Amino acid sequence: MRHLLEEIRHNPLLWLLAFVPAVFAAQKLGPERSVLLFILSVLAIVPLAALLSHATESVAAKTGDSVGGLLNATLGNLTELIIALTALSAGEYMLVKATIAGAIVTNSLFMLGMSFLLGGLKHHVQEFNKAGVRLQAGLLLLATVALLLPSAISRADAQAGSLLVPKLSVGLSVLLIVAYGLGMLFSLKTHREQFVSAEPGEAGEATWPLGVALATLAGVTVLVALVSEVFVESVQKAAETFGMTPAFVGFIVVALVGAAAEMASAFAAARKNRLDMSVGIALGSASQIALFVAPVLVLTSYFIGPRPMNLLFWPGAVTLIVIATVVVAFITSGGRSAWFVGVLALVVYVTIAMTLYVLPPRTQGSGGPITHDPVSEASPR
Amino acid sequence: MRHLLEEIRHNPLLWLLAFVPAVFAAQKLGPERSVLLFILSVLAIVPLAALLSHATESVAAKTGDSVGGLLNATLGNLTELIIALTALSAGEYMLVKATIAGAIVTNSLFMLGMSFLLGGLKHHVQEFNKAGVRLQAGLLLLATVALLLPSAISRADAQAGSLLVPKLSVGLSVLLIVAYGLGMLFSLKTHREQFVSAEPGEAGEATWPLGVALATLAGVTVLVALVSEVFVESVQKAAETFGMTPAFVGFIVVALVGAAAEMASAFAAARKNRLDMSVGIALGSASQIALFVAPVLVLTSYFIGPRPMNLLFWPGAVTLIVIATVVVAFITSGGRSAWFVGVLALVVYVTIAMTLYVLPPRTQGSGGPITHDPVSEASPR
Amino acid sequence: MRHLLEEIRHNPLLWLLAFVPAVFAAQKLGPERSVLLFILSVLAIVPLAALLSHATESVAAKTGDSVGGLLNATLGNLTELIIALTALSAGEYMLVKATIAGAIVTNSLFMLGMSFLLGGLKHHVQEFNKAGVRLQAGLLLLATVALLLPSAISRADAQAGSLLVPKLSVGLSVLLIVAYGLGMLFSLKTHREQFVSAEPGEAGEATWPLGVALATLAGVTVLVALVSEVFVESVQKAAETFGMTPAFVGFIVVALVGAAAEMASAFAAARKNRLDMSVGIALGSASQIALFVAPVLVLTSYFIGPRPMNLLFWPGAVTLIVIATVVVAFITSGGRSAWFVGVLALVVYVTIAMTLYVLPPRTQGSGGPITHDPVSEASPR
Repeated sequence: MRHLLEEIRHNPLLWLLAFVPAVFAAQKLGPERSVLLFILSVLAIVPLAALLSHATESVAAKTGDSVGGLLNATLGNLTELIIALTALSAGEYMLVKATIAGAIVTNSLFMLGMSFLLGGLKHHVQEFNKAGVRLQAGLLLLATVALLLPSAISRADAQAGSLLVPKLSVGLSVLLIVAYGLGMLFSLKTHREQFVSAEPGEAGEATWPLGVALATLAGVTVLVALVSEVFVESVQKAAETFGMTPAFVGFIVVALVGAAAEMASAFAAARKNRLDMSVGIALGSASQIALFVAPVLVLTSYFIGPRPMNLLFWPGAVTLIVIATVVVAFITSGGRSAWFVGVLALVVYVTIAMTLYVLPPRTQGSGGPITHDPVSEASPR
Repeated sequence: MRHLLEEIRHNPLLWLLAFVPAVFAAQKLGPERSVLLFILSVLAIVPLAALLSHATESVAAKTGDSVGGLLNATLGNLTELIIALTALSAGEYMLVKATIAGAIVTNSLFMLGMSFLLGGLKHHVQEFNKAGVRLQAGLLLLATVALLLPSAISRADAQAGSLLVPKLSVGLSVLLIVAYGLGMLFSLKTHREQFVSAEPGEAGEATWPLGVALATLAGVTVLVALVSEVFVESVQKAAETFGMTPAFVGFIVVALVGAAAEMASAFAAARKNRLDMSVGIALGSASQIALFVAPVLVLTSYFIGPRPMNLLFWPGAVTLIVIATVVVAFITSGGRSAWFVGVLALVVYVTIAMTLYVLPPRTQGSGGPITHDPVSEASPR
Repeated sequence: MRHLLEEIRHNPLLWLLAFVPAVFAAQKLGPERSVLLFILSVLAIVPLAALLSHATESVAAKTGDSVGGLLNATLGNLTELIIALTALSAGEYMLVKATIAGAIVTNSLFMLGMSFLLGGLKHHVQEFNKAGVRLQAGLLLLATVALLLPSAISRADAQAGSLLVPKLSVGLSVLLIVAYGLGMLFSLKTHREQFVSAEPGEAGEATWPLGVALATLAGVTVLVALVSEVFVESVQKAAETFGMTPAFVGFIVVALVGAAAEMASAFAAARKNRLDMSVGIALGSASQIALFVAPVLVLTSYFIGPRPMNLLFWPGAVTLIVIATVVVAFITSGGRSAWFVGVLALVVYVTIAMTLYVLPPRTQGSGGPITHDPVSEASPR
């Protein structure tokens, strides 16, 4: 507890923890005030995600390299996973898919672009380890291609195989998780030396004792789950009030909120001219979403939620993810960066955000935002 | 005047200036002879573009590096801009968009491919400055991605957001122009040394005195505007006679005609084994279209023309531009070239030209070529 | 004959030759047993393809480098060509196109991925000649772009130009063959030194005398043609029984069967740490399909088959080929490989196979597999 309090004193981000009780109080007092609940829950998730991230690293630091790496790799996107699971059990498939797609795009374009910009403002030209980063950009490219292929192929003819889509989604999810397991074997075991140490908790930073870390991990996970529930319940109405679509909320808001802690680490590393680490955090996080979080959500949907979720994304999401990974593959392959490279990645990201804000996918002129994904999810259980 | 005459004596391309008075004479005598007017105006634009280009360089050479670079960057595609503005005020939106898309594709695939081929026929393998060119190819890739995202995302569902498209187009245009400004800050100021001197007017070539250059710039701009008017008026009928669609005319004819002067410089540089310069001219010109000319046209459309123009391109154009930039990013990233690389870029270009000639976009079987872009431009002012 | 028998004794793959007479016997005895005929013909084609490949190399080895290279380049995909020609004369256009698209995807993703995996299991990190491979990956990228452009452009509007598509297809086929000829001039003559010796028949392996080789070439070609006929006749019914679509059969089964011999060479080279050769075989074979086999089939369709075939592929095929070539361009451009790179290429390939197996293209809910490509082939002769 002392460690926790000390951490809170030193890290202003954690002062936002005051919003956690505020969320629950507000929910009790005014459960119909969606906009307020939405804002409070967003503000409460940010510090919880930071705590979760620090606790994971502390456990990882205590348990040795291999188990630690495994933990970091599995729990690194725990916040996004919990939010997506909450949305899943509420049947908000569009929000779940937007969260998956948005986490890939935000982690690659925004986190990377901002790292390049912040690093570039301080250092004229930054070089980074080309070979390691190339490998990671390659993993991301191939991971997202594997994730998106079914959507891309069936795009022209969405109805045709709709009865077969759930079967295919389960098969692909298993395949992706196997690939993810092999990827961990590769990066943590057989080809460890190729990967830069991308762990945010670098030497010199205080880690917590194992007990504190585990207790924090458990407690904060419960809190994130509870706050996520408020968030998912309120998001629909709040989004309508702000004129945002669920696609925009999932793609941009959830992705930015969930990755706040990793971003803080990535940006700090970039300013210290350690771009290897920034790129490692950004790309590692993005490919983890594609290879691990997405298939876990599909498989879990058979146990929670009104009906199974499939792996078909709406065409716009496919295009965005493909563009994001191609852009990332390109800008990281040179091994050099300057501030303007960051600006252009951010311009692409802002373009995506503006377009999603203005042009809701698949509204078919009905005006209001949609939550479900009628065609691809219409298949009976 | 003496300078101008001397230039004309030395540059056979400028003998085509004889066609300028011919255009106006023909328009007076036979305003209904569209095919003749079309051919004459094409032949007249070529030397005017060359003069415009030389005048811009002369002014740039006199005004010092920073202002000069700014001028070159802003006026480098003046011919295309004037033609597009004339088409805009005539309400020929399809032609305007085809000109934008075609200038990007032609400058990257044709200008680059022909440079590689011509250079490769003289030199076995040509190396070029990988880092600088990579940066430029990256700018082009990101610029076109930012330009095309709205079309790509809204592709599946063109009607949905049509009411919001104008708003989005204005916002994106401002964003692109800001990015362009930052790009100039980057290439002319903060990271100047990374960019090869891509100015066609190299040392040893005579530049004009400032007065002559400015007068030429002003006079020729007026002439290009006048000839463009004849061109835009006649193109529709002439295209029908030749069996060309406006898409083909804008994509191929206008782009080749408008870039004739830059091509001459790029090809000459390639033969002198200065591929850096060729690549710089080609890619710089292409990204200028995407980041500067296109948004300026959108913003201008609120002041001239029957109704505002948006940034939505038809799906085929999106595909072509994406393919062109990916091909360019790939072939330039190696830092080496040989004649066959040029051949293949040209094969891709000829394939595009043949396909556009034969398959008009969006004719829906009606037979005749279309000029307007019904869906995307249907939004009320 | 002695050479042939000796070869058969040493190469267990050739023991499958026993299935050749079995096919003909089965066809005589039970022409209606499609599933049996399908399996037997697949098993018979594999050793015939291996013989064809060895005979081609033997002829090439005797006729000197230039003619030999030409022969290898022309007859390297003879098996696929014969199968496709047989399918063409039976009017099975969907199967022909699936074979073309599948050969490109299988040769690039599967052959390359498996080479990287097998090589990587034996060698920690494998380096390969970046420059040469880059050039080949570039050729493949540009070749497939040129092949697919018409499909990509006309995708949005399939009916529009249908009357013009045959004309365009012939023009493009001629263009592609010219490009292929120039490519041979480039790789065999002007820039020979840039290309790794990608001939499977490496030094030390016994080649046959010219007479034996030529006789084998002729005889086996006839046998492949005969077996192909059984294959094409039985595939439709057999595919239905197995629940496979013609798209899946062409894309995966024919491609794997036809390339069996080259794969054996590529995998062996990878295990010997000669990745240059593996990559050369895989990419060379893929670009030969795009630049030579496909256009030859289009031109031949004017002489055999019920009506001309065009170059329009269904949208899913376009997406798959583009993805495959981009993935290949990316993973080969680094010049380094490890086992996991192979795994990920294979994951992408398995994803494609699963998706094609489950989601038939263009069935429009009718349930059964389709053989023809109604829209694009509907044009009158």
